[in-house]
Amino acid sequence: MNKRKVKIYGTGKYLPGIPVTDLEMDERLGTEPGWTRRVSDVAVRHFATDEDTASSMGAKAAFAALEAANLRFSDMDCLVGASGSKEQALPCSAVFIQRAMGQEQSGVPAFDIDSTCLSFLAAIDAMSCMIEAGRFRYVLIVSSEIASVGLDWTHKESAALFGDGAAAVVLGPAEAGEPSGVVQSAMRTYSAGANLSEIRAGGTKRHPRGPLPANPEDYLFQMDGPAIFKMSSRLLPPFTEELLQAAGTKMSDFKAVVPHQGSAMAIRLMRKKLGIAEEQLVYITPDHGNTIAASIPMGLHEAIRTGRIARGDRVLLIGTAAGLTLGGLILDY
Amino acid sequence: MNKRKVKIYGTGKYLPGIPVTDLEMDERLGTEPGWTRRVSDVAVRHFATDEDTASSMGAKAAFAALEAANLRFSDMDCLVGASGSKEQALPCSAVFIQRAMGQEQSGVPAFDIDSTCLSFLAAIDAMSCMIEAGRFRYVLIVSSEIASVGLDWTHKESAALFGDGAAAVVLGPAEAGEPSGVVQSAMRTYSAGANLSEIRAGGTKRHPRGPLPANPEDYLFQMDGPAIFKMSSRLLPPFTEELLQAAGTKMSDFKAVVPHQGSAMAIRLMRKKLGIAEEQLVYITPDHGNTIAASIPMGLHEAIRTGRIARGDRVLLIGTAAGLTLGGLILDY
Repeated sequence: MNKRKVKIYGTGKYLPGIPVTDLEMDERLGTEPGWTRRVSDVAVRHFATDEDTASSMGAKAAFAALEAANLRFSDMDCLVGASGSKEQALPCSAVFIQRAMGQEQSGVPAFDIDSTCLSFLAAIDAMSCMIEAGRFRYVLIVSSEIASVGLDWTHKESAALFGDGAAAVVLGPAEAGEPSGVVQSAMRTYSAGANLSEIRAGGTKRHPRGPLPANPEDYLFQMDGPAIFKMSSRLLPPFTEELLQAAGTKMSDFKAVVPHQGSAMAIRLMRKKLGIAEEQLVYITPDHGNTIAASIPMGLHEAIRTGRIARGDRVLLIGTAAGLTLGGLILDY
Repeated sequence: MNKRKVKIYGTGKYLPGIPVTDLEMDERLGTEPGWTRRVSDVAVRHFATDEDTASSMGAKAAFAALEAANLRFSDMDCLVGASGSKEQALPCSAVFIQRAMGQEQSGVPAFDIDSTCLSFLAAIDAMSCMIEAGRFRYVLIVSSEIASVGLDWTHKESAALFGDGAAAVVLGPAEAGEPSGVVQSAMRTYSAGANLSEIRAGGTKRHPRGPLPANPEDYLFQMDGPAIFKMSSRLLPPFTEELLQAAGTKMSDFKAVVPHQGSAMAIRLMRKKLGIAEEQLVYITPDHGNTIAASIPMGLHEAIRTGRIARGDRVLLIGTAAGLTLGGLILDY
């Protein structure tokens, strides 16, 4: 596969509502002070307020990305919603983001790509090919997630992990001579793990009118952390080795590694198993939590904003998602 | 844009349960005998039984497409779920289709592309670019929809339109010298029409635990037919003209036109406004109803199966979707 000559023109982030500290979470969860911090390493995460919707949050991140790119919405040829959660069952979320941006008459194509927590990665993968094929020039990719509404507070370990938020990027063609591009990408799905993290209701299977009615907890996020951890530990190292080999690159070539911030424990495992140096790792869990598919673009945004990566630097985006899906993408920023 | 050198290797279709005739629908809707047929032109549609899931239906259509392509699942590099409805809120539907095919250890990447009724068209558009870029070789695209569970029986005009079903295609690279390819594609989204057809619940906005709880009817499909009709009438003719012009082709060049089977009335309008001849139109509404995103690949499947199109024939896939989105794709079969 040839390097796809695309470039990230700008990134943006939006955190909704007011921050919720670890001690406030302890109170909410009924755990002793310090428990949330100890098990999740999340010191503060944001929860959406009653005024926030996934689309209003996504619109704010998208405007920030456009500003960073020094481009306007009218320059965009496509808007991709790349979230693990939806605002409503139908239509797709990108439509609502377009409207929240005040662009309801723009005609800009708006559709979703969903690979749960790896939706952003899948969107970069697909859209870099569409740009390379000349189908689109500038594409706005937006991940926006309200995890808080679906947390099961009786499963404290899982509820302690998540935060709400949105992140967006503008992707477009790299200009002649520029070093930017997608070097290599890979994805693997093992649906043997399909029920290890899930929201069982919300679709056609457990529907209020269907043969299998939904219980209240079916609308909540359920996760078997230890089983995911075990499956990921086994699958991620050979997957990553194969990805790096296909690209002819090695872990030490990366200026930064932006993992999905699934959990502090998952990231520790990944760092150890994949040989990621501490100075390479972009670790935003302590002040964001796990923001589902917004997690990787947020990490990328923070790495760019804080000057940890500069034009031409090689970056690895990597993680696992409900599915169970593994994904990795090598990007020359 | 250059022609994308891809080819449809095989198509498949699956209709679940038992057929429901127009007279049975009249009884169910409490309308006089003949009403359903008169307003919808649907003589028979299929409804899923308690044993069917969107993924089990999708798997059956996918196996049929593999058989038609004379390929096996192990030849596939990717599985795309291209439906307007989801089986459950999380993870994405392609994961469940992979599992229903008994491929849960295959590792084949599985993600969804969602542009409501035009999801299949958006998937062909994106995946033809990914094949062209060398990212994937063979891609299995599956649309599977259970509309029946979400019908609002108090809105008879809307409830009369829909059927359940699944369709799938195997897309891969065209070989040297073959005429097949994607000639041109276009999509436009006008979110001013976002609420004209929708299912308001099922996502993060109207959630049982959220500030805006869902009423029972929020889980049902709601549609303002006349408003969609008005918006489509205005937007579709210039959209189509632009698409044909960009491709340097004209309506009479098409051996077949496969429209989204939104409703008999919408198709009549389209045929008249776009100047589609009766012998070009692939019209499967009478024995399928509107099967959401499965509608276009089903029409394509029927056109191939019945010999209406042969290798190299030019085909137009076209329609509107909730969003409101317009989409068109010119395919040399």
